[in-house]
Amino acid sequence: MPPKVALIGLDWGTTSLRGYLLGTGGEVLAKRSENFGILNIENGEFAAALRHLAADWLQTVTVPPIIASGMIGSRQGWWEVPYGDLPAGPEQLSPLCFDGFDYPIHMIPGLTFRNADGIPDVMRGEETQIAGMDADGVYLLPGSHSKWVLVADGRITWFATFMTGELFAALKDHTILGRMMVDGRDGDAFLRGVGVGHGTRAALQSLFSARTLALFDDIPVGGAASYLSGLLIGAEIAEARALLDKLPPKVTIIGAAELAKDYQTALSHCGLESMLAPHGIVARGHWRIARAAGLLAP
Amino acid sequence: MPPKVALIGLDWGTTSLRGYLLGTGGEVLAKRSENFGILNIENGEFAAALRHLAADWLQTVTVPPIIASGMIGSRQGWWEVPYGDLPAGPEQLSPLCFDGFDYPIHMIPGLTFRNADGIPDVMRGEETQIAGMDADGVYLLPGSHSKWVLVADGRITWFATFMTGELFAALKDHTILGRMMVDGRDGDAFLRGVGVGHGTRAALQSLFSARTLALFDDIPVGGAASYLSGLLIGAEIAEARALLDKLPPKVTIIGAAELAKDYQTALSHCGLESMLAPHGIVARGHWRIARAAGLLAP
Repeated sequence: MPPKVALIGLDWGTTSLRGYLLGTGGEVLAKRSENFGILNIENGEFAAALRHLAADWLQTVTVPPIIASGMIGSRQGWWEVPYGDLPAGPEQLSPLCFDGFDYPIHMIPGLTFRNADGIPDVMRGEETQIAGMDADGVYLLPGSHSKWVLVADGRITWFATFMTGELFAALKDHTILGRMMVDGRDGDAFLRGVGVGHGTRAALQSLFSARTLALFDDIPVGGAASYLSGLLIGAEIAEARALLDKLPPKVTIIGAAELAKDYQTALSHCGLESMLAPHGIVARGHWRIARAAGLLAP
Repeated sequence: MPPKVALIGLDWGTTSLRGYLLGTGGEVLAKRSENFGILNIENGEFAAALRHLAADWLQTVTVPPIIASGMIGSRQGWWEVPYGDLPAGPEQLSPLCFDGFDYPIHMIPGLTFRNADGIPDVMRGEETQIAGMDADGVYLLPGSHSKWVLVADGRITWFATFMTGELFAALKDHTILGRMMVDGRDGDAFLRGVGVGHGTRAALQSLFSARTLALFDDIPVGGAASYLSGLLIGAEIAEARALLDKLPPKVTIIGAAELAKDYQTALSHCGLESMLAPHGIVARGHWRIARAAGLLAP
């Protein structure tokens, strides 16, 4: 007898679509990934992409509830779901039902709030990863748009977005800083950048150091890109510390292995401990949000 | 009788070549400008460019001394002149004699120093503009690479480079921030950006506000670019204040009219007074440096 299926979870972002088939205990029975991110979908053919990914999952006698998180619910996605407010845990992240597909899709809202300066910030997708974690604390989700998230009493109470990855790419590929850069990683140059970025009183001013240090052979030619990466990550850590007033003893990193490792190295260089989140938290977040919303069969 | 000519001054940067013919009292007898910046010169044809600009100036019986400042003396220029050290005024900026042209060219060195964090900074060309000013104080030279310069006892004693203009272009044209931007200026959005950038504890983090404020219609669609420009300039002012510990009551701005005006507006919004430098200071700087170096006929 095949295992009983209880939920299809979709983690649908800008670059990829990941699908999870969850059993009645929330266990992952199967998972799949395609590069069907919303930026790769042409002419709004989201339905075709989903049918391709999940063909056999959708041809069973009883198709389980489908729940989706990520940029698929943005203005550029399939169906826009308004942002929810903080604080937010699985109970507050009630999905909205989209009926534009063969079966209903329960779209998890993103989150927004206004920070201490009155500036709005937004997330879409990360809230579901966080919902899959068990402990309160500070979470760091590095990437093009790195997020720092504070969780208290099981709910997100604060977050901040840093455009670190995208800023790095723009500086490297489209400013004078990139002229002296070659491919390759240099651990020493990375750490030097982390130290300068974390210690400076003037993060924007310090960007130029990625040129001058290379100009004076203070960092090797092959190290300029690693230095700049470290500089931006170090500055991100310093700013997150300033915004959070004080960090708890440990930061939990949620992210792809290599980038997570870089951040772990950087945090350690700044005197902060960190640990890596386990795999599979998105599916667990889907499960918890679906359960809180009463989508699972009793 | 034609006026007696004492000096040819060349202000030769990345985008343009400006030439000045100076009389025996240092007065400007003629000036010219061509888009013969070093980035526009192909195959190293600097000599041809100079002969084109100054043909008649070079065909007199007695060609006066020629002095040059700017990126022409960089590694990417005609002849590399090593950087000089701080403090530096006209007496320290002794030109080096380049003999690769029909007549000797006296190349003014750029400047370098290591800031309080041990990071080198560099300038090339701005030192000559500053040498044309009369008063001690803080000078601000806005642009792709904005410079803040401290002058004491007639010499440059400190400076800092901010990649503000280049950063703005890279963010606008090559990140998600540009997606919501249209052409046009919006004074209110600019000032809002100045306020946020100047007040934030987290300059890099605040970049994302250029997206979220537009997303929530907090700034009009037509204002996002002006907001980002203000944000970067406000952050630059805050960082310059932090680096300088305290600013003197007035900042003198050296730069093109429109950009100088934006900075003046921003400085005022941050509670700082400013004034615009007079025109013609480059030629005055050439004159003073030439005089200090003994290049002028007695």
